[in-house]
Amino acid sequence: MFDKIAIIGLGLIGSSIAHAARRGKLAKEIAGFDVSADVRARAAKIGFCDQVYDDLAAAVKNAQLVILATPVGAYKGVAEAIAPHLAKDAILSDVGSVKGAVVRDVGPFVPAGVHFIPAHPIAGTEFSGPEAGFATLFDGRWAIITPLPGADSAAVARLRAFWEGLGSRVDAMEPGHHDLVLAITSHLPHLIAYNIVGTAHDLEAVTEGEVIKYSASGFRDFTRIAASDPIMWRDVFLNNRDAVLQMLDRFNEDLRQLQDAVREGDGEFLFDKFSKNRAIRKAIIEIGQECAAPNFGRDQKKT
Amino acid sequence: MFDKIAIIGLGLIGSSIAHAARRGKLAKEIAGFDVSADVRARAAKIGFCDQVYDDLAAAVKNAQLVILATPVGAYKGVAEAIAPHLAKDAILSDVGSVKGAVVRDVGPFVPAGVHFIPAHPIAGTEFSGPEAGFATLFDGRWAIITPLPGADSAAVARLRAFWEGLGSRVDAMEPGHHDLVLAITSHLPHLIAYNIVGTAHDLEAVTEGEVIKYSASGFRDFTRIAASDPIMWRDVFLNNRDAVLQMLDRFNEDLRQLQDAVREGDGEFLFDKFSKNRAIRKAIIEIGQECAAPNFGRDQKKT
Repeated sequence: MFDKIAIIGLGLIGSSIAHAARRGKLAKEIAGFDVSADVRARAAKIGFCDQVYDDLAAAVKNAQLVILATPVGAYKGVAEAIAPHLAKDAILSDVGSVKGAVVRDVGPFVPAGVHFIPAHPIAGTEFSGPEAGFATLFDGRWAIITPLPGADSAAVARLRAFWEGLGSRVDAMEPGHHDLVLAITSHLPHLIAYNIVGTAHDLEAVTEGEVIKYSASGFRDFTRIAASDPIMWRDVFLNNRDAVLQMLDRFNEDLRQLQDAVREGDGEFLFDKFSKNRAIRKAIIEIGQECAAPNFGRDQKKT
Repeated sequence: MFDKIAIIGLGLIGSSIAHAARRGKLAKEIAGFDVSADVRARAAKIGFCDQVYDDLAAAVKNAQLVILATPVGAYKGVAEAIAPHLAKDAILSDVGSVKGAVVRDVGPFVPAGVHFIPAHPIAGTEFSGPEAGFATLFDGRWAIITPLPGADSAAVARLRAFWEGLGSRVDAMEPGHHDLVLAITSHLPHLIAYNIVGTAHDLEAVTEGEVIKYSASGFRDFTRIAASDPIMWRDVFLNNRDAVLQMLDRFNEDLRQLQDAVREGDGEFLFDKFSKNRAIRKAIIEIGQECAAPNFGRDQKKT
């Protein structure tokens, strides 16, 4: 599909793209770059790239597809550095969890003749680094591409086909709407999870040892996404502020209602709220975006 | 271990106790009762009890161990109904997620010569009903018993041995402290999960279809515990009000700090908060209360 692709940033997502691109035979050469010498060495040892570069210009040279896979806070610097070295007709894309800020930060550096098409795969795990990647990460998950007005339709089609080749289902969306959708489906859940784990950490009435010991009663579910990469998530919140604050306001409003119901002993209100939630999980399972087994199939012990 | 045990309420927990007691050969006769004729019929068909009763007095007659496993809001009525029929020296216990309210509701009805020892297994799934139970639910999980001052030590030891026979590890705790510990490890996580799923449900800017489709980015983790039994959870919040409100105040205070940091673009604060959370998950995994695989091992696809 491509003679050369370049992946900038070799963490969980970058390395998984390399694994999956190789599995799908999507590129003759997979070039990788990471700013960290340690990550480069580890990536080279694993071998998911044909070559790991320590020089951005060399990594992107002649690449027909360049994918930014660093934390989004680093995009601007990377875009500025690679811009003069991008091949004519290359596709420049990314995997960032926010899209408006990416358009803002990367857009101004894109040379004429380069197709800038932001993208975001809705896939991941709580692990980070080049060892965390695997070829099946994107299988059956959605990838959202957010082409800008006037984007070249052939380039958009190629990027779509690339993500399909990685195993994804692909949707297109306007960047601003993407950021609202992800604010509720991803960013707010992460903020809430980080927060409750932090709250549990700081209590005096209950020890951290007790929280750890009895966590199977619900708390442990939150610790998974609260174990996600802190740099990546710092950058998400710095770059999707308005949408996150908007969703957080709604969350707080709803939580105040639940709090009042608990305080006033309003069982009917609580029951009504709690009863509405099974359908949404059922729907998520039915479209293949969640595991149907009890406890996420954690134990596989059900007899 | 016992000639006869009686399980009052044949949902997820009651049926799992029956399965596990049979596996562990802990009772010659396992008697079951449920207030619902439909549940009784389904339980009888599955066959995890030796006999399913439609009469509380008959169910508890001659039982040496009686376990309340209904929603805690029903305990008072059940306790009043069974009290005259409890055998001398019987142990009366339960599985409720709150303990102070159970002491308050059940305590006054306990006849002299009956050993009332509240208990709570820290185990469950998001499924409900007699079909949801399975024999290994308690394996390796903690069960907390909350004996009252002056409790008969031989009876406490028997109940402890019973839970160990079901597969649990057993701790003892004062009822009020139990309610604080569970408020942070279980009740607040459920309230937050119910709330965010509710918030997502009611948005105008993002459709429910979009939330469902892109839920793999974090949201789906919350839908599991938000799919838990609404009657059970209504009763938990009605009966552990003060501890839940206390933990919720702390949560809200912490969330306001995060909200301010997002609003002000304070990346350092966000990074510091996010960085603290990996250790707690690691500790939970190390003590065997959580699955170490990425994404809870949902997919088993990692290559």
